[in-house]
Amino acid sequence: MPATSPMPDISIPQARRIVVDTTGAQIVQEESPATRDSRGIYLPHYIEPVSHIAIDIGGSLAKVVYFTRSNLPISTTPPQSGHSSPFLPPSESVFIPPFSSNGTSSSSSRHHESPSLNPHSHAPFDHSPPTRHPTLNGALTPGVLSEDYRNQASSASSAVRSYASTVSNHRGSFSKPHAGKYRRSDSLPPPLPGGLLNFARFETDNINDLIKFLQDLINRSAAVNRVSLEKMQKNVKVMATGGGAHMYYDLLRKELNVEVKREEEMECLILGLGFIARVPEEVFWFSEELVYKVSHTNTKDRPPEGEKLTIPPSELPRPSPTPPAYQVTFADANATDNVPNFPCLIVNIGSGVSIVKVDEDGSFERVSGTSLGGGTLWGLLSLLTDAENFDEMLLLSEQGDNSAVDMLVGDIYGSDYSKIGLKSSTIASSFGKVFRKGKAKKSFKQEDIARSLLYAISNNIGHVAYMNAAKYGLDKVFFGGCFIRGHAATISTLSYAIRFWSKGTMRACFLRHEGFLGAIGAWIKNVEPEPEPEIQSETSGGVDASLQRDVNGKAH
Amino acid sequence: MPATSPMPDISIPQARRIVVDTTGAQIVQEESPATRDSRGIYLPHYIEPVSHIAIDIGGSLAKVVYFTRSNLPISTTPPQSGHSSPFLPPSESVFIPPFSSNGTSSSSSRHHESPSLNPHSHAPFDHSPPTRHPTLNGALTPGVLSEDYRNQASSASSAVRSYASTVSNHRGSFSKPHAGKYRRSDSLPPPLPGGLLNFARFETDNINDLIKFLQDLINRSAAVNRVSLEKMQKNVKVMATGGGAHMYYDLLRKELNVEVKREEEMECLILGLGFIARVPEEVFWFSEELVYKVSHTNTKDRPPEGEKLTIPPSELPRPSPTPPAYQVTFADANATDNVPNFPCLIVNIGSGVSIVKVDEDGSFERVSGTSLGGGTLWGLLSLLTDAENFDEMLLLSEQGDNSAVDMLVGDIYGSDYSKIGLKSSTIASSFGKVFRKGKAKKSFKQEDIARSLLYAISNNIGHVAYMNAAKYGLDKVFFGGCFIRGHAATISTLSYAIRFWSKGTMRACFLRHEGFLGAIGAWIKNVEPEPEPEIQSETSGGVDASLQRDVNGKAH
Repeated sequence: MPATSPMPDISIPQARRIVVDTTGAQIVQEESPATRDSRGIYLPHYIEPVSHIAIDIGGSLAKVVYFTRSNLPISTTPPQSGHSSPFLPPSESVFIPPFSSNGTSSSSSRHHESPSLNPHSHAPFDHSPPTRHPTLNGALTPGVLSEDYRNQASSASSAVRSYASTVSNHRGSFSKPHAGKYRRSDSLPPPLPGGLLNFARFETDNINDLIKFLQDLINRSAAVNRVSLEKMQKNVKVMATGGGAHMYYDLLRKELNVEVKREEEMECLILGLGFIARVPEEVFWFSEELVYKVSHTNTKDRPPEGEKLTIPPSELPRPSPTPPAYQVTFADANATDNVPNFPCLIVNIGSGVSIVKVDEDGSFERVSGTSLGGGTLWGLLSLLTDAENFDEMLLLSEQGDNSAVDMLVGDIYGSDYSKIGLKSSTIASSFGKVFRKGKAKKSFKQEDIARSLLYAISNNIGHVAYMNAAKYGLDKVFFGGCFIRGHAATISTLSYAIRFWSKGTMRACFLRHEGFLGAIGAWIKNVEPEPEPEIQSETSGGVDASLQRDVNGKAH
Repeated sequence: MPATSPMPDISIPQARRIVVDTTGAQIVQEESPATRDSRGIYLPHYIEPVSHIAIDIGGSLAKVVYFTRSNLPISTTPPQSGHSSPFLPPSESVFIPPFSSNGTSSSSSRHHESPSLNPHSHAPFDHSPPTRHPTLNGALTPGVLSEDYRNQASSASSAVRSYASTVSNHRGSFSKPHAGKYRRSDSLPPPLPGGLLNFARFETDNINDLIKFLQDLINRSAAVNRVSLEKMQKNVKVMATGGGAHMYYDLLRKELNVEVKREEEMECLILGLGFIARVPEEVFWFSEELVYKVSHTNTKDRPPEGEKLTIPPSELPRPSPTPPAYQVTFADANATDNVPNFPCLIVNIGSGVSIVKVDEDGSFERVSGTSLGGGTLWGLLSLLTDAENFDEMLLLSEQGDNSAVDMLVGDIYGSDYSKIGLKSSTIASSFGKVFRKGKAKKSFKQEDIARSLLYAISNNIGHVAYMNAAKYGLDKVFFGGCFIRGHAATISTLSYAIRFWSKGTMRACFLRHEGFLGAIGAWIKNVEPEPEPEIQSETSGGVDASLQRDVNGKAH
């Protein structure tokens, strides 16, 4: 996440193929708002042949991704008592009861716990309570199970590959994978129950909480699978990325007593995006129509149906004291909007901000960054407000009016500065009203300060992102990182900044698992060993084209 | 100073020619550190044919520029008692005694008050005490003096024009103007005593202080010149620019009872730069050699003499917790570095930041801006520190260590992130160390907070400036505005940011009267009436080429 940086080429990552079958993938209903951005993802047609845990340790937060078995599709009724996976003793379930407010951990299969997802749901924007420690969920599948398991596992992974090809042969046929599958190989067993991709988050400061969580996960998995802890540890691998992967490498090895593999941060970011973008209802953005409506009360001058909107820059809504209501549009899982998403610009907003250019072939370069990121907002607001954590800060900002502290164009000119097209509501100087000789500090409300700072940082990131996207001719900008937290004001400000500066020619895209791109990428990297030639050809059509090639664009 | 803005064309300003003779111009020695950036400029060969005062009222500060007569060159001994200008009654002097600490007003001719300027003087970087109210200095020359004066004045202005042409006919001959002058027209009278360009600054909040200052100046000038206040008011004109020119237009007219003319902000900025850059020892920058030395302890791999330095980006010094010692290089008055300075990018940092692209012909466009400017630093530091004013905040920052609050690359990686060329001292996240659950707020020092915020804002402005300079292919970036205040850490950070991002291909330039560009431009605009044809031709070679043309580049 470093800020100022040169623009060197990054060492070329190895060719990667995603053979995780996303057919029928679903983001599970949340059992708690705290899991807003860390809901589990149910993968009905994937099982993991070897256990591993992926972690992405940033400057402020450590993100965890791991896969646990599931024995029922998310949209069916919960398991009957005693019912269990073929790999589990009847007495044990990989699912623990939902924990309504004491965790940011991932998923629950209890369908009745919450309403089902709606493509235009505002769920991603629910307020969230203070973050507490993630709670363990599910158990890993060790690579030391019975021969019986191995067979099924291997046939499963060939099933996975056949599914993968099916997916590509029938883009848009996510809902009826079996057609493809059985056409490909009737000899395969019926689909395995699949499982859940779990997400958890910790403060890097509390690294011991992370370690404890991982130890418990490993211990629990050993118990659930009735293997010794030693066997489990031998078979579990930790894929670590982010700066902390280097900082805490020795500590992790010593405390977990498992293999720890370090992966390059930027490469994992790109891989993570490539995978997660294939999950339905993961990618979303503000609709052009909304932006247009906001700047047009009447509709007479709307363009004909189907025509691209070209909104005059002067009519684009600007970040203002009171941003309009927002509305999300999810990428259509059946449209090419969903996969591939390259070329694009990825702006990862953690403690600091990294800006990465991704070409169509998946090759990438960290081209820019800024030190004004989440850490800046969190740090300053922890000095300026009583908020105890980021979620409280966001709640504060929602109740504030930045015009009480920001100097607007109208405050300087007494009106618009129409000569250069600036509206009187445009922010001329963030916190520009605060500096008053002898003015009492307590005369400024925490809420207003929080909102002003959120705008200032979001606007600035959007501005720098736009300049880089323009420089490299990219019209799609993905915003990731835990700074966003699915927060409406943040997303609207970033979206407006991109639209405003690009005069409506660029789109700002967001992700529901925005903070986990790096961790997901690290997890993907270990999903399967280096591919054997015949598998490559067999599956060549079956995976995201942008990940089917190496970063030089050489197809296999 | 507005922040986010579209990029429209700005209405074309009228053709302008500068006939103010800068021959022998000198920046007077300061009588107080408070005048660091507002020292008077002695113009031995210019007198003002008509009185006017220029003001630039921004969101936080109002800047004043006005010309008063002088009856002695700056570098001679002080006047004998009773000695006076031919236009003054013997009993009166236009100079008031130096005021050592109670003002930011401009100039004194008392040579012995301070050491004479040295091209490598650090004077511009002296600490300055809290700003207090400017003190009135000198008297205006009304357009209502005797016929005798009028004659001398008009012959003076023709002398001015002839000097102007001389200057250009002998670029680099600033030191011996008479040669040119007498060759041109032996009939002209010996040089007139000239006078002083005065600078003063007020907080926009205290607009009444500004009005009182202007009232006193007008009253005093009436008394000194023995004309009635009514006559003086009829003959004095106020040229107003900046947002406050609109906001306070009616107030100014009512309170001053003089004509108030509004001038466009961006146009004045460009005109002001075009004029001030012609003053010796006004423009300065960090030497390439210094930057190079900083990143090379040994000198073996220096390029041959005369060859342009191309410093590898990875070896460019970065903004770091402890920037190296700085050193200024003044533009050589005899070099083309001095005039013209176009094309260039002008980054004016006031409460907010305006970024203006200037073409070779002087045409310009406000292409960008950011709301993270001086107002942001002043506002946040007034909330976070006990500093009462900006100078105290700068003093605080000089005693601080930002690494106590900033998250550096080394804090995240435990080392350099060499894979993408980031040193461990690079700031990854401004204030990234502050956010600690339950950490006591008082555990952070005001000095460290001040330094961190100064770096954060300066880095960001430098970054955005670089991106715009690169976009428009400009290699010279002028930083103006009262944010800079000749402050070493600010100038070094801005310079490093430009060098770092541009890989040493761009130069950051600074000005000693950085905060007064707009006010100087407004003053210049009224220096003489619209030019008559013959004067144009007569002086066509005599002034800055960039100001000899209209903004479309059509030469006259």
